[in-house]
Amino acid sequence: MENMLDFLQNGGNLRKLNKEQLEKLCVDIRKFLVDTVSSTGGHLASNLGAVELTVALYIVFDFPTDKLIWDVGHQSYVHKILSGRTDRFETLRKFGGISGFPKRSESEYDSFNTGHSSTSVSAAVGMARARDLDGDKYSIVAVFGDGALTGGEIFEAFNDAGNKKTPLILILNDNNMSIQKNISAVSKHLRNIRINKHYFSSKLRIAGFLDKLPLFGMPIRKALEGMKRTLRRRVLPTTMFDELGFKYIGPLDGHSFDELIPSLKYAKAEKKPVVIHIKTQKGKGYPPAENDPAAFHGIGRFDAETGAIPYSPESYSSRFGAKLTELAEKNNKVVAITCAMPDGTGLKEFSEKYPDRFFDVGIAEQHGVTLAAGMAVGGYTPVIPIYSTFLQRAFDQVLHDVCLQDLHVVFPVDRAGIVGADGETHQGVYDISYLSCMPNMTILSPSSFEQLDEMLEYAINLHNGPIAIRYPRGGNQPYYAHEKFEFSKAYVRRSGSDVSIITTGRMLLTAAKTANILKNIGIEAEICEMPTVLPVNADAVIETTKKTGIAVTIEDNVLSGGFGEHIAGILSESNINCSFKAFGYPSVPIVHGTISELDKLYGTDAEHIAASIGRMINNDKDQT
Amino acid sequence: MENMLDFLQNGGNLRKLNKEQLEKLCVDIRKFLVDTVSSTGGHLASNLGAVELTVALYIVFDFPTDKLIWDVGHQSYVHKILSGRTDRFETLRKFGGISGFPKRSESEYDSFNTGHSSTSVSAAVGMARARDLDGDKYSIVAVFGDGALTGGEIFEAFNDAGNKKTPLILILNDNNMSIQKNISAVSKHLRNIRINKHYFSSKLRIAGFLDKLPLFGMPIRKALEGMKRTLRRRVLPTTMFDELGFKYIGPLDGHSFDELIPSLKYAKAEKKPVVIHIKTQKGKGYPPAENDPAAFHGIGRFDAETGAIPYSPESYSSRFGAKLTELAEKNNKVVAITCAMPDGTGLKEFSEKYPDRFFDVGIAEQHGVTLAAGMAVGGYTPVIPIYSTFLQRAFDQVLHDVCLQDLHVVFPVDRAGIVGADGETHQGVYDISYLSCMPNMTILSPSSFEQLDEMLEYAINLHNGPIAIRYPRGGNQPYYAHEKFEFSKAYVRRSGSDVSIITTGRMLLTAAKTANILKNIGIEAEICEMPTVLPVNADAVIETTKKTGIAVTIEDNVLSGGFGEHIAGILSESNINCSFKAFGYPSVPIVHGTISELDKLYGTDAEHIAASIGRMINNDKDQT
Repeated sequence: MENMLDFLQNGGNLRKLNKEQLEKLCVDIRKFLVDTVSSTGGHLASNLGAVELTVALYIVFDFPTDKLIWDVGHQSYVHKILSGRTDRFETLRKFGGISGFPKRSESEYDSFNTGHSSTSVSAAVGMARARDLDGDKYSIVAVFGDGALTGGEIFEAFNDAGNKKTPLILILNDNNMSIQKNISAVSKHLRNIRINKHYFSSKLRIAGFLDKLPLFGMPIRKALEGMKRTLRRRVLPTTMFDELGFKYIGPLDGHSFDELIPSLKYAKAEKKPVVIHIKTQKGKGYPPAENDPAAFHGIGRFDAETGAIPYSPESYSSRFGAKLTELAEKNNKVVAITCAMPDGTGLKEFSEKYPDRFFDVGIAEQHGVTLAAGMAVGGYTPVIPIYSTFLQRAFDQVLHDVCLQDLHVVFPVDRAGIVGADGETHQGVYDISYLSCMPNMTILSPSSFEQLDEMLEYAINLHNGPIAIRYPRGGNQPYYAHEKFEFSKAYVRRSGSDVSIITTGRMLLTAAKTANILKNIGIEAEICEMPTVLPVNADAVIETTKKTGIAVTIEDNVLSGGFGEHIAGILSESNINCSFKAFGYPSVPIVHGTISELDKLYGTDAEHIAASIGRMINNDKDQT
Repeated sequence: MENMLDFLQNGGNLRKLNKEQLEKLCVDIRKFLVDTVSSTGGHLASNLGAVELTVALYIVFDFPTDKLIWDVGHQSYVHKILSGRTDRFETLRKFGGISGFPKRSESEYDSFNTGHSSTSVSAAVGMARARDLDGDKYSIVAVFGDGALTGGEIFEAFNDAGNKKTPLILILNDNNMSIQKNISAVSKHLRNIRINKHYFSSKLRIAGFLDKLPLFGMPIRKALEGMKRTLRRRVLPTTMFDELGFKYIGPLDGHSFDELIPSLKYAKAEKKPVVIHIKTQKGKGYPPAENDPAAFHGIGRFDAETGAIPYSPESYSSRFGAKLTELAEKNNKVVAITCAMPDGTGLKEFSEKYPDRFFDVGIAEQHGVTLAAGMAVGGYTPVIPIYSTFLQRAFDQVLHDVCLQDLHVVFPVDRAGIVGADGETHQGVYDISYLSCMPNMTILSPSSFEQLDEMLEYAINLHNGPIAIRYPRGGNQPYYAHEKFEFSKAYVRRSGSDVSIITTGRMLLTAAKTANILKNIGIEAEICEMPTVLPVNADAVIETTKKTGIAVTIEDNVLSGGFGEHIAGILSESNINCSFKAFGYPSVPIVHGTISELDKLYGTDAEHIAASIGRMINNDKDQT
C-alpha cells in the first residue's frame, strides 16, 4: 500500500479511507513524526498518543469551520500534518519555520494559540458563546490531557460552562500522565473511572436494575420508592463531570476508531457540553517512547532507529538540583516543591534522596506558591523552581501570599531569557519586570555555575524574605574567572574608560564579546556585572558611569520594566551628565529560533551592540 | 444578663459559658459589629453570618497553638474580637489601626495573611506539611465561602491535599452567595447537597439499606452482590469532596452550636483531610443586612438603627458602567464579563439591559480573561472590568492568551492606585508595572469622567488589540477644563519654564496642587498630562523637558517598572542634559488609611513633591 500521507497530500480524501487504510495512515504518521522530530527536536510522546484521535476528529468534524483547540498545544503535530503542513514539517520549531504550538497566524486550522496548560476550555467556552450569539451552529472541540486537570483555570471553566450549559465538546485525552507521572486526587478519580472498563454502559445497566427493583407492600413500598429516587440521583451522576453539569462519555479506547468515531458523532449532535474521556498511551507505536514517555516528551535530536538519546551536558537545571541536594543535607528545613516538572527543573535526585521533603503538586503553580508560603510560615525554607514563563501563572501568589508577608521562599527561575525553539509562549523574558515591582523581592542572576551554587547557598542559608534566582536554559558559558558571590556586590570584570557596559547573568558573555569587538576599533569598555539584579547597586552604577560618561545595559529580558530601565531611573536621578542606552528585547511576541538567531533579530548580539556603542561614542565626540 | 463581650474582656472563660450565655454572646457580638462597622465602614454581612462558627471554633480549638486561616479574610472580625482586639476595634481599617483582614504582624492569632480569594486551602496544606515534618499534632483549620470554590487555586489545593491525605480541617461556609448571588456549576452541586437536609445521616442510612438488601438464589444472588458493591462505591462517595479524597461532613446548620461543636470535635480527632460543610445566612441577625446582603458586604458608614445607607455619589465604576451600556446600544459586538462583581464594577445596568451579552464567571479571573480571549477570536469585543489588585490573578492569561495573540479585549482596571481602607492586599499600585511589559498592550488613564467616557469609546470602537483603562476608586476630581481625548496625545495643562511635571490619571490633581504651591514661591511649573500611559509619547516628554531642564513624574503606582521609569528610560536615551525625579510608591506593602494619609506617608502629596522640586531647582542653580 502506498504511503497514506502521500496519498492525502496528493488530494486523497481522508473520509473515503477504509479501516485498513486508516490504520496504515496512523502507521505512516507515526513514522513521519519519529523521523521528523528525531532531527528537529520537539514534543514526541504526546503526539504519538494522539494519532487516532486526531484522524477521527478530522473524519467527524469540518475544520476549520468547526473549531479545534489543543490544550498546551504540544500534541498538535498530527493536526498540523492533516491540515496541510506536511511539506513544511522539516522546518518545525526552526527560525522562520512552523511553530511547535498552534498559531492562528500560521493556519486557519489553528483556532486558538496555546502553550501553557489548562486554558483550552476557557477559550472554547468563549468561542462557543460568540458562536451562539451569532446564531451559528458549528462545533467547538477542545482537547486536553489529564495533566491539564491539575491546573485550576480548567475548573473555573468547567464551573462556568456546566452552569450555563454552553454546548461544546471537551475531549479528555487521558494517558495517566501529565509530563511525568500524574499524582493528584483528580487522577485517582480518573483511575477509579478507568477501572470500570465499560463505565458508560454500566451506568445504563444500573439504571435498568433500579427500574426493575421489585416493590412490595406499603409502607415499605413508599420508603423504597423514595430510596430508589435517591439512589438513581446518586448512582447516575457519578463522575465529577456529571456533577458539574456535563454529559460524560467514557472511558473509551483512544486508539480505536470503532469507539472514537461514533462517540464524536454523538457529541457533535448534542446540544449541551459533553466530555469524552479517552484512554491513550503516551508514545504509542514507538517502543522507545512507550517505554520512557517522560524522556520523549520534549526532546532534542535523537537516533530514530534505536531511540538512543545523546548525552545531555550539565545544565543550569541539573546543576541547581545537585547543589540543592547538597545544601539539603546540612539544612533539614529545606523543602522542594515542583509543579509537575521534577525532571525538567532538576529535582530528581532531591526527590529520591529526600522524598519526605519533596512535593509535586501537579501543573498548579498558584497552589505551589501559596503552599510554599504556608510552609515558610511553618518554619521551613521552600525552594520552588519554576520556568520563568510558568511562574507568570502564579504572579498574584508570589506577590500576595509570599511578598506581602515577606516570607522566606526561594524561587529558582529556570529558562529565564530566550528559550529558543519553543517560541513565543515559552520565552522567559518578562520575569525581571514582573518580579521587580513586588514588595520585598530580591532577584539574583548568575553568569556561571559557580555563581549559581553560591547564590543558592546565600538564598537558602543567609537570606530572609522572597528571593528569585533567574538562570537561562542551557549550560555553563563562563568567560571570566570566578569571583566569590557577595550579595549586592557589583563586579568590574574589565576595566575601561570609554563606555560602561552594565549587565547581568547570561548577557555577561555578550558584554565580553562586545568589549572584544570594541577593542578592535580602539574603544575600551568597562564591564560591570551585577549578579544582584534587585535591589540594584546604585553606587556601582554611578561610579562606573561617572568614569566613562557612557552607560549601556544588556539584559535578556524585555526593556519595559527591566534591568535597563531600573538603571536609567538611577542615572536620571543622579544628575550625572551621561549618554545611555538599554539593550534587551522589545515587548513583542518573541518568535522561535535559536538564541543566537533571536539575539541577532532583536539587536541583542555583540556585533549590533558594539556598532551602536561605536555610534554613541562618535556622537558624543561630535557634540564636544 | 451582662454584656458577654465585657464578661470575656474581663477574663471570663468562653468555654464555661452555658448555652444561653453563648447565645447572648452572639447577640452582643452582632450588636458590637453593627455599631462599629456603621461608623468605621467595612465588611459586615459576611461577619454577621460567621458569629456562631467563630465562637464554636474558639470553644473547640486552642488558638493560637492550633492555626486558623480565613479565606479572603473579610469574615475575620469575630475572630479578631475573640482574640483580644475588642478594645481596638474602633480603629478598624483606619490609618495606624487594626486591619480589616488577618495580619500576622497584628496578632499571633492571625496565622496567615489573606485578602484575595481561594488561597486558604493552599496555605493550610503548606502549614500542615510543615507541622507533620516537625512531628507536631496541632490542628490547622481553614474557613472558606462557597464563592471561593469558583476560584481555581482552591481546586489545585484540594487535588494535592486529597492525594496526600494531609490532615487538615476545611470549613465550607456556604451562604449560597459569594459577594453577590453565586452562579456556578459548583454552587448547583452544593444546592443539590443542601436539598438533602440530613445528608450525612442519609448516607449512613443508605449504607444500611444496602447491607439489608435481600439476596436470593444463585446466579441472581451473585450478580446482585456485584451490583451491591458497585452501588456502595457509587452511592457512598457522592460529593465532589468525597471524590477528591476528603472526609465530608454536612451540610450542618452553621448557626447551631449543637451541630457545630460535635462536628468540629469529630474533625479535630480525624487523621485525614476533613471538609465540614455548614450553611449560614449572610447578614444573620441584622434585618437590613439579611434583606440585602450584597449592599452590606463591603460598606461605608451607615445608620445602624435603620440600616439606611447614605447616597453614594457617582464613581468611576458607575460612570464606566453607564458609558458601557450606552456604547453597547450602538455596537452589538460589545459583551461584558465580570468575575463575581457585577455591582462593584458598575455592570448592573448593563447586565439588566443586555443579559445575553453579560457573563458572570465567578471569582475566576483566569477563566474570565481567557474566556474574553475566546470571544474576541469569535469576533466580539469583550470588556472585562476587574479591580487592579484582582487582575494580578490573571497575569498570565492577559499576557499569554490575550496579548501574545494581539486580541481586542478591553480591560477597565478599576481601583487602580491606592484603595485606602482595605489596605495592603488590595492596593492597585502594581498594574502599570505588570501590564507595561506585555506585548501589544496599551494603557490609558483618565483624570476625569469625561476622559473615561472618551477612552472607553476609543478602546471599544477604534482600537484594536489589548487595551487597559486604569481608573481610581472614588469619584470625579477634575481640575482643568476637559479637552477631547486623543490616543497618544500629551496635554500641556499648564505652561511654565522652571520644571516639567509629567503625570497621568488621578495624579493630575496632585500635579496641579504642586504647581500652585510652587507658584507661591516663584517657581513656574509646566504640567504635561499623558492620558496614554503606554506607549509613552516620547516626543512630548523630550519637548517639555528640553524647555525646562527639570522633569519630575508623579504616578499612583510603584516606582519600579512604572510610569516614571519609562520616562527615565526615554530621557536617559535622549541625551538631554536634565534633572529628573520620579514620585510614586515604593515597593513595600502599602498599609491601610485614607488616600491622603497614605500619599503623605509615601511622599506623593503636593506639599512633599513641591518641596522636593524646590530643592532640585536650588541644586541646579548651585551647580551653574
